[in-house]
Amino acid sequence: MRKDGLAKKALALHKKLQGKIHIQETLPVKNREQLSLLYTPGVAAVSSYLAKRPGETSRYTIKGKIIAVISDGSAVLGLGNIGAYGALPVMEGKAALFKAFADVDAFPIVLNTQDTEEIIKTICHIAPAFGGINLEDFAAPRCFEIEKRLKEKLDIPVMHDDQHGTAVAVLAALINAANVVKKKLPALKVIISGAGAAGTAVTKLLLLAGIKDVTVLDSQGILGRLRFSLPPHKQELADLTNPRDLEGGYEAALKDADAFIGVSGPNVIDASHIRLMAAKPIVFAMANPIPEISPEEARRGGAFVIATGRSNLPNQINNCLVFPGIFRGALDHGVKTITDKMKIQAAKNLAALVKKPTAQKIIPGPFEKGIAAAIAKAIK
Amino acid sequence: MRKDGLAKKALALHKKLQGKIHIQETLPVKNREQLSLLYTPGVAAVSSYLAKRPGETSRYTIKGKIIAVISDGSAVLGLGNIGAYGALPVMEGKAALFKAFADVDAFPIVLNTQDTEEIIKTICHIAPAFGGINLEDFAAPRCFEIEKRLKEKLDIPVMHDDQHGTAVAVLAALINAANVVKKKLPALKVIISGAGAAGTAVTKLLLLAGIKDVTVLDSQGILGRLRFSLPPHKQELADLTNPRDLEGGYEAALKDADAFIGVSGPNVIDASHIRLMAAKPIVFAMANPIPEISPEEARRGGAFVIATGRSNLPNQINNCLVFPGIFRGALDHGVKTITDKMKIQAAKNLAALVKKPTAQKIIPGPFEKGIAAAIAKAIK
Repeated sequence: MRKDGLAKKALALHKKLQGKIHIQETLPVKNREQLSLLYTPGVAAVSSYLAKRPGETSRYTIKGKIIAVISDGSAVLGLGNIGAYGALPVMEGKAALFKAFADVDAFPIVLNTQDTEEIIKTICHIAPAFGGINLEDFAAPRCFEIEKRLKEKLDIPVMHDDQHGTAVAVLAALINAANVVKKKLPALKVIISGAGAAGTAVTKLLLLAGIKDVTVLDSQGILGRLRFSLPPHKQELADLTNPRDLEGGYEAALKDADAFIGVSGPNVIDASHIRLMAAKPIVFAMANPIPEISPEEARRGGAFVIATGRSNLPNQINNCLVFPGIFRGALDHGVKTITDKMKIQAAKNLAALVKKPTAQKIIPGPFEKGIAAAIAKAIK
Repeated sequence: MRKDGLAKKALALHKKLQGKIHIQETLPVKNREQLSLLYTPGVAAVSSYLAKRPGETSRYTIKGKIIAVISDGSAVLGLGNIGAYGALPVMEGKAALFKAFADVDAFPIVLNTQDTEEIIKTICHIAPAFGGINLEDFAAPRCFEIEKRLKEKLDIPVMHDDQHGTAVAVLAALINAANVVKKKLPALKVIISGAGAAGTAVTKLLLLAGIKDVTVLDSQGILGRLRFSLPPHKQELADLTNPRDLEGGYEAALKDADAFIGVSGPNVIDASHIRLMAAKPIVFAMANPIPEISPEEARRGGAFVIATGRSNLPNQINNCLVFPGIFRGALDHGVKTITDKMKIQAAKNLAALVKKPTAQKIIPGPFEKGIAAAIAKAIK
C-alpha cells in the first residue's frame, strides 16, 4: 500500500469507528434488583467496605484489571511534540492492543500539560481508579524524572513503555541474533544510535544482561569522556558505556562492532558503515517510519541479521510484543514494581518463543500465540 | 430483602464482576493490516491530522462518545467524606448506568485530592480525551466553585449531577404532582429541606421554572433575613428565597406549604408537620437510604402525593432518570454548555412521559422506555 493510501484508509477507519475502544457493562443493568445491587442502595456496602480497606479496591472494582495509557503528547511516534489531541489516537490504539494481545483493559488519558511537576501531580491524583500506569510518548529527559518519581509515589506498577518495552524487545531479539551468528551475548560489541528514552533504557538493560562493551551515539557523535557539558542523563550513559574510549562518529563506533541498534532517526548510516563491522553484522534499524538504514542498504553492506520496527518486513522489533504481557503479569501477580530482573527474564522468555532462530526469524510476529503469557510469566 | 442481605449480596456481586464496566475493542485487531491501520504506521496520519485540527478529535476518537464520571469522594451517597477508593464503586456504577440507559460510554475517575485548585487543574489536564465531565459526590460548597470554574475553562459540557440531575428530576416530579393536586406550579409554596449541592440546585431551578414562593431550611432552620454570618452559597439562597420572611424551623416553614422537598437527612419531620401543610400536601422525601419522613408517617399526616429516592417504593425521584439523557443529548448535538433553559425543558419532557399522572405515578420508573431520548431532545 502506498503511504498516501494507508493514511487515507487509516483516517477513514478512525472516523468510522469513532473510538478504537468502547465501554461495555460487565453485567447488563436490566431490572430494579440489579440496579439496587450495582448502584444505590447496595453499592453503599461496597463503598463503606473499601473506604475502610482501600487495599481491597482491586478485588471489587475495575482497578483490578485496568491500566491507564498516559501521554503528554511531547514525543509521539516520529511526529515529535504534537500535544494531547494528536497523541490520543496512539494511546487509544495502545488500549486496543492491550485488549487484543493480553486481554488487559486499558484506558487512554492525554494530558493538557507538559510541565513535569503538573504531570506527576495529575497522575498521582487520578491513580486510585487504575491498576497500573503505562507512560507513553513522553519526551526525554522529562520522561526519566516522571517515571522515577511516580514509581516512588504510587503503589501500582508504572512503566514508560518507550523505554522498557523497547528495551525488552531489543534484548530478546539480540539474544537470538547472537545465537544465529554464533557469538556469546556478553562478548558482543554493541553500538546504540540514539540517547533518548529508548536508547537510554536499551543501553541500561543490555549492560544489566551482561553485555560489557556498549557504546552510545547521539546526534553529536559518540558519548564518552571527551564529550563535555552533557545533560545529566547523557552524562550517566557516557559514564556507564564506551569502555574502549571511542571518539568521533559512526565510522569510529562501528569499526569491529558486532551489533548496531538504531533508536534514533532516518538514514544515519549506509552500507559503508556496515562494511566496517565485525563478521556477520547484526543490524537493528528501528526508527519509524524510516529506519536508520534501509534493509536493502544494510544487506549491501554485508549485514547478516537485519531487523526493523516496521510491520511489513521480517523481524519486527516492536514494543507491542512486550507491554501487554508486562501488565498482564503485573495485574495477575499483584506486582507493584517492574524490576530489572523481571525485564531480563521477560526478554529471555520472549526470545525462547522462537524455537530455532535464523537470520530471518529472531523474534516472534505480533500475532503469534502465547507471547503475552510468556512475558507475563516473568512478571512476578 | 433485609439490609444486611442486600449488603452481602452487593459485596459478593462486586467481587465476582471485578468492575461493573470493562473495555472492549471496537474492531478486533486480528492481523497485520488492521495493526498497521489502527496503530503504527497508519495512526500517524490521524495523529498529524488532529494535531493540526484538535477540534476534529471527537470525530476520530473515543472523545466523541465518552464522559468522565469524576469524584473526589468528599460526599459519597449518604456516607459522607469516604475518599477516592470508597467513591470508585459508585462512579463505576454510574458509568454502567450511562451505558444501560443511554448507550453513553463513561469512565470513572476518582481523585486522590480534595483541594479545590488541585481538582480543577487535574480535571483540566485530563479533559482532552473526554467529550464531557459528570462531576459526582463533591461536597458543598466546593462543588459550586469547581463546576463554575470548569465550565469557564473547558470547551466540553461539565455538570455536577448531584445538583442538576437531581433538580431536573425534582422539577419533573413537581410538575406532575401539581397537576395531580390541581394547583398551578408557579403558585406553589415550596419548602426545601437541605441547603447543600442538591438543595441549592433544586431551589434555583424551581425559581427559574416560575415558582415564586420557595423557602429553604438547613440544619439550623429557615434561611432568611434573620440568619447571620451565612456562608456565601447559603446567603445567596437566603436572598433568592423566603418571600414571606419566615423564621424558625420546620413548623413555621411547613404551615400552609403546598410541597415539601427533602434533600437533607433522615427523619427531620413527622406526621404533625404534614398536618400543618395546605390541602393535598406534596411530600418528596429523597434522603437515601433513610428519608426525611417515612412514606407511612407522611401518609399518617395526610400527605397526598408521596415520593422518595428509593427504588423499592413508587415515585422514585432519582437522577439516574436524568444524567444519561443529558449527556446523550450533549454528545449528539455538540452542546458545550448545559443551560438552565435546557434543564427546564428536560424536566418538562420527563414529566410529559407520564401520560396521566396520579398520586401513585408522577414520574417514570427508571426502566421505562424513551426516558433518555426524551431528555436528550431538550439538550440542544
